[in-house]
Amino acid sequence: MEFMEERIRRDGRVAPGEILKVDTFLNHQIDVSLIRQIAKALKEHFGNREITKVVTIEASGIAIASITAEELGVPMVFAKKSKSRNLNSDTYKSRVYSYTHDRYYDIVVNENALNDNDKVLLVDDFLANGQAMQGLLDICRQAGADVAGIGICIEKSFQPGGKALREEGYDVLSMAKIKSLENGTVEFEQ
Amino acid sequence: MEFMEERIRRDGRVAPGEILKVDTFLNHQIDVSLIRQIAKALKEHFGNREITKVVTIEASGIAIASITAEELGVPMVFAKKSKSRNLNSDTYKSRVYSYTHDRYYDIVVNENALNDNDKVLLVDDFLANGQAMQGLLDICRQAGADVAGIGICIEKSFQPGGKALREEGYDVLSMAKIKSLENGTVEFEQ
Repeated sequence: MEFMEERIRRDGRVAPGEILKVDTFLNHQIDVSLIRQIAKALKEHFGNREITKVVTIEASGIAIASITAEELGVPMVFAKKSKSRNLNSDTYKSRVYSYTHDRYYDIVVNENALNDNDKVLLVDDFLANGQAMQGLLDICRQAGADVAGIGICIEKSFQPGGKALREEGYDVLSMAKIKSLENGTVEFEQ
Repeated sequence: MEFMEERIRRDGRVAPGEILKVDTFLNHQIDVSLIRQIAKALKEHFGNREITKVVTIEASGIAIASITAEELGVPMVFAKKSKSRNLNSDTYKSRVYSYTHDRYYDIVVNENALNDNDKVLLVDDFLANGQAMQGLLDICRQAGADVAGIGICIEKSFQPGGKALREEGYDVLSMAKIKSLENGTVEFEQ
């Protein structure tokens, strides 16, 4: 989407390690009018799929998921990052590896928040290696919920997450796809 | 507010330790239309104070802050819970004690997200002992930002946080004030 690429070009900042900093408008300070534009684009693409819930992971996905859920007129659910090793019997749980922090963490969703009548739109701010998204898919599988699609703000398409998800048959819509962050420069997929 | 009390009566659940579970509509699965109602109530009360930013803490405050920020037409900022002990020179930082988890954690806000031209509305889902809110106030003080008010979804008024903030002169608006959770029953302030 042109609006997202423009915003990244204007306010994004490339940091060492192929990191794109978007903390002035997307995941720390948040321009809510941009989020509304993203939500409308997601509704345009996924709006006719009888979605019953929008699901994300804390924390950066919550603003996007909330406003997208409002567009679609459905509740939103955010998976919590769990530090405790307690297995609650009434939660779905999946283990996620974070490349950023080089550690595993668990994500949990209450059983009463997701079930086999649900048709889910998964959303997140970034898609890179796709570990967090695979964790959400695992939780949807445990709940027996259908996944109607995946909405992403910024996909780093030089990392394998998006390709793997599409090969698994998921409809992944990314607002911006970044081909390269080499030499401190953002290059978008055409 | 009547709408909030009604919803808590209908869908809230009291757990041992005077805990009010609202995870089916407020802080895990989220009824976004309820959040919009909250945002409108906050706008009605605080809307004429030239607020420039809505600020909260991850994760449960983010949905409320996002939609309130949209109502007010300003950006929102969420303080991050930091596990690292690194002192970044370009962040405001405050230490918060969590009664729930009996431990200290740091919250951080980037310096470029808050400054002495800002007039801030602080929001959160719960106010009990007020530790998290005091951390946000500390960060606003560091930034030189004015605090125009504090908006809370559920205040446990049998705990001291709200009283202390009002004695310090802050205008705290709570959607629901809970006087007691004894014997598994929710009693509201009149």
